[in-house]
Amino acid sequence: MINKDKKNTLYLVPIGLSESSFEWFLPHKVKEEIYQINFFIAENAKTARHFLKFISHPTLLPQIEIFELDKHNLDSQKDEIKNILQKNDKTGLISEAGMPCIADPGNHIVKMAHLNHILVKPLVGPSSILLALIASGMNGQQFKFNGYLPQKPDERKQTILKLEIESNHTTQLFIETPYRNDKFLAEMCQILKPNTMLLVAIDLTGENEKIISKPISWYKGNAIEIGKLPCIFGIGV
Amino acid sequence: MINKDKKNTLYLVPIGLSESSFEWFLPHKVKEEIYQINFFIAENAKTARHFLKFISHPTLLPQIEIFELDKHNLDSQKDEIKNILQKNDKTGLISEAGMPCIADPGNHIVKMAHLNHILVKPLVGPSSILLALIASGMNGQQFKFNGYLPQKPDERKQTILKLEIESNHTTQLFIETPYRNDKFLAEMCQILKPNTMLLVAIDLTGENEKIISKPISWYKGNAIEIGKLPCIFGIGV
Repeated sequence: MINKDKKNTLYLVPIGLSESSFEWFLPHKVKEEIYQINFFIAENAKTARHFLKFISHPTLLPQIEIFELDKHNLDSQKDEIKNILQKNDKTGLISEAGMPCIADPGNHIVKMAHLNHILVKPLVGPSSILLALIASGMNGQQFKFNGYLPQKPDERKQTILKLEIESNHTTQLFIETPYRNDKFLAEMCQILKPNTMLLVAIDLTGENEKIISKPISWYKGNAIEIGKLPCIFGIGV
Repeated sequence: MINKDKKNTLYLVPIGLSESSFEWFLPHKVKEEIYQINFFIAENAKTARHFLKFISHPTLLPQIEIFELDKHNLDSQKDEIKNILQKNDKTGLISEAGMPCIADPGNHIVKMAHLNHILVKPLVGPSSILLALIASGMNGQQFKFNGYLPQKPDERKQTILKLEIESNHTTQLFIETPYRNDKFLAEMCQILKPNTMLLVAIDLTGENEKIISKPISWYKGNAIEIGKLPCIFGIGV
């Protein structure tokens, strides 16, 4: 086994999915581990600062260093990131919501950690994708997260139809930009077969959490309004 | 929004991945929520009892009712499960490790809950699949969990080769029965291309946690012994 004591560590820091108390999503010892970290790499420095304040990080905020990723220009930040990982014995990686490295550029930082012999330590926290999957009642032996679907109408329709076929053996999960949620739901009602099961998992862990797992025909008869709340969609059996 | 107060609830209860303190994987309020539940449906009653004792559930163990699933005979238990969900205002679903409904029969219980207008409440906890994915440094925008691969040699080889091609755009995760871990690793070293990236995530959250994300060529030159520890495998870019 690797001698962990001698290696710098990149901690993958989970943050909340909603504004609920951190005691709903952050295990006590994970919180204490985060308290030991004073250098963070973040998708958004403001979100990271808000989170650290929210969990009452014991270091004064001005003394915590936060390096903000430029996701359109990660290549130009590579040397700096490598330097951070090599200089600090503990660095935290924080995303915009939930677990880092899912549907965000964090995986590039983790890749650099592996290449530079930095220990990678994922911390337990909330994942809206996993929570949606287990709450769906759909097949959890095989599942796929597809991220965002293509935007071009033709390609998009073909993708949805392809996912519907694949959903017979593999649960298919996907997301949409929140302001397009309701349009997307209407679109799926139009494209998918009436008996295809659709999961709509809204505001998981939040005040307005609502998890619906029903056939398309049900959605056609029931007006569901998601609004701009975060939502995970899924189709499967 | 649904009036949650008037509905019975099926809680999806996470348990540990390893013997580490529950303060590493269970948020405080999730633990308190579990304390309110006195009826559980479990893949294995012994595991469930051990967990409830481990987190110091305040109800005396003999007073907690645990219904054990017969995964080869779920159909014959349907009426009984429906009855449990309708009788108890709070029922907990517990799997063998980690989050229920992933690579276990729990999803059938959740499906019955949705059909019978029971509220489904997934609780935040550890998922070895998600922890492995985020620690891999591989693509987290698209990923697929494949469960167990086929056992027949030809079919198995073809599946591994197919997943290797798909891994260019979607990270592929899978598992093997622990006592076959090392044989499986050797098999992948033989079948996959030297520059294909392989993730081996061993004993996540446990004492022997080790996360390796390297090209196949590296594994050929470095003797890794997984033994019977729980392990998640992955290929991707």
